[in-house]
Amino acid sequence: MSKRILLLLSIAAPALAQDGVPAPSNVIGAQYPRILPDNSVIFRIKAANAKEVTIGEYKLTKSDDGFWTVRTKPFAPGFHYYSVVVDGLATTDPGSQTFFGALRQSSGIEIPSPESDFFAVKDVPHGAVRIEWYFSKTTNKWRRIFVYAPPDYDKDASTRYPVLYLQHGMGEDESGWTNQGHENFVLDNLIAARKAVPMIVVNEHGTAPDPATALADHERWMLDNRFAEFDSVVSRDLIPTIDRRFRTFADREHRALAGLSMGGAEAMRIGLHHLDLFASIGLFSPAIGNLDPVRDYDGKLANANEQLRLLWIGIGKDDTSFFLSVKRSHESLEKAGIHHVWIESEGAHTWTVWRKYLADFAPRLFR
Amino acid sequence: MSKRILLLLSIAAPALAQDGVPAPSNVIGAQYPRILPDNSVIFRIKAANAKEVTIGEYKLTKSDDGFWTVRTKPFAPGFHYYSVVVDGLATTDPGSQTFFGALRQSSGIEIPSPESDFFAVKDVPHGAVRIEWYFSKTTNKWRRIFVYAPPDYDKDASTRYPVLYLQHGMGEDESGWTNQGHENFVLDNLIAARKAVPMIVVNEHGTAPDPATALADHERWMLDNRFAEFDSVVSRDLIPTIDRRFRTFADREHRALAGLSMGGAEAMRIGLHHLDLFASIGLFSPAIGNLDPVRDYDGKLANANEQLRLLWIGIGKDDTSFFLSVKRSHESLEKAGIHHVWIESEGAHTWTVWRKYLADFAPRLFR
Repeated sequence: MSKRILLLLSIAAPALAQDGVPAPSNVIGAQYPRILPDNSVIFRIKAANAKEVTIGEYKLTKSDDGFWTVRTKPFAPGFHYYSVVVDGLATTDPGSQTFFGALRQSSGIEIPSPESDFFAVKDVPHGAVRIEWYFSKTTNKWRRIFVYAPPDYDKDASTRYPVLYLQHGMGEDESGWTNQGHENFVLDNLIAARKAVPMIVVNEHGTAPDPATALADHERWMLDNRFAEFDSVVSRDLIPTIDRRFRTFADREHRALAGLSMGGAEAMRIGLHHLDLFASIGLFSPAIGNLDPVRDYDGKLANANEQLRLLWIGIGKDDTSFFLSVKRSHESLEKAGIHHVWIESEGAHTWTVWRKYLADFAPRLFR
Repeated sequence: MSKRILLLLSIAAPALAQDGVPAPSNVIGAQYPRILPDNSVIFRIKAANAKEVTIGEYKLTKSDDGFWTVRTKPFAPGFHYYSVVVDGLATTDPGSQTFFGALRQSSGIEIPSPESDFFAVKDVPHGAVRIEWYFSKTTNKWRRIFVYAPPDYDKDASTRYPVLYLQHGMGEDESGWTNQGHENFVLDNLIAARKAVPMIVVNEHGTAPDPATALADHERWMLDNRFAEFDSVVSRDLIPTIDRRFRTFADREHRALAGLSMGGAEAMRIGLHHLDLFASIGLFSPAIGNLDPVRDYDGKLANANEQLRLLWIGIGKDDTSFFLSVKRSHESLEKAGIHHVWIESEGAHTWTVWRKYLADFAPRLFR
């Protein structure tokens, strides 16, 4: 045994585990965090010299061995970001996998439930998520994308597929729909059950490329420059790349654009700005403000009934950020007679909700 | 602007940046860590109430704004794992991307140099890394693999490819060769320059599935159960899956097995145990101990000159873990007259070295 291997083994040494089970979002071998039968969680962090360790609302307590622990109240099933705050540093829990959120690699915990079944890995044909790189003329940089290719994509070289462009939220990146959202398993399961047609799903990086500049004028950045640039990335760079690399149906009827939160705002703006490119739009807990169907988006919503095959809007009742504005926007659309699917669901502004929205949205596409 | 968006923007607010440039391994928008022209690094961490913050040998010093900073001595070019230790908690730097190592998500920093060119993203045809899932009968579980498919894999449905099975080191996982190793860009660049033949590269998860059990008897685990189980995963589950899903040449002449550190030990054991499956073996800074070419591996090395098309061994002169044992093993092989490519390189036990080894090894394969 080399010193290095012994060192690694000592790092991996598990604590004595009593109650509950390790979370499915733990790194391999990590015994904490643990989930108890009532969905409360035991967090356990080694920080021998710390004065204070907190996770969200919880203060951890220290024992003589240098470990800080807490047993929380029951968590809602689903995915939760969290930070460990040690003497003022907001950082990660070594026991958990990291997920890109809040513009950094953040810890996350998955609380399983019977409702996890639709995104579980099952004995059905599996697609693959491809990490691809392409050059954007708009930004003059190489960009990474995640592309889900459905099961059997490689089997028949003559089959073509429709494409869903699916965006993450602010502070997240192109890995979000795979790592937090499990889009591949959601689609695998829907396709196996013949609830959705086989489709390609593309995730780009919709976050500002240069927050340093953008923050000087963040309102303008969000509402003007930011969307204009990403519009160009999607319409001029990304779509031609996908249609060249993959066997797509390269027309608007076979393209959809959707996103969550900030990604919903992107989907609405870019989708309506490019009705030549997209015929379906999905808004998952979108950051769209109070919609004025007549004036907003250069009045393009006025023709939505003729132009769009699907306008889908979902919001959780406990979404304290956006429930009111999205609900009002829905009512304005109703009044204006603009057809749309409206889902007022349980849940808050979380991936737990967005996975379900994908499972509702995808089956309605490309029929 | 919602509260959530403003919160995220405040998290992203960059510090005033003076010297150097953000490391290429930083998360988007993060101004620290910064690399200075002499390759020294400024780390900067907010931990307002901490008593002590260290990174490796460096103690950071606190300023009134709650930030801890240090300017290090020059780093060697290449990739370095690191931890921020805050009052006893070894954790991540929010400014850096995370990389799975030491059985957790660890911070890493990339110090660029002219030698980074061979794994840079360039204007050449690009392959893609596919995140795939398959069911292992050996472990009775679904397993995730990363599979590099070379450029043009999708273009011609009649072309078949050889396969390199390439393993990470202990405490790492199947994402290592993509995230730390940039295997895709290494191969893209080699293939574009016609230095390597187009090939598929497969990364499995070679770390023990159950450290809790394994640690009770870790010597036995490493040398017996551990390798036996992974042998079965590779030979019974993985290879048939790859040969079914991808257009491979499904014979030993078109299969290679290589790995770094612990992965090198896996490559040696599994490769020699399955000369029916592999004709080429690569050992990158391998954890093989002092090799006895006659007695070890059931004496299978005796026929290596007839059986193996390539046996490749590389070690860095500054590899304090394995240099002596690998050097002696090389000398023993020499004495026994067993042909092998021998690379005694600069460098230590790091990804900086292993990327270079891949760039030397891959061009020798499948000729």
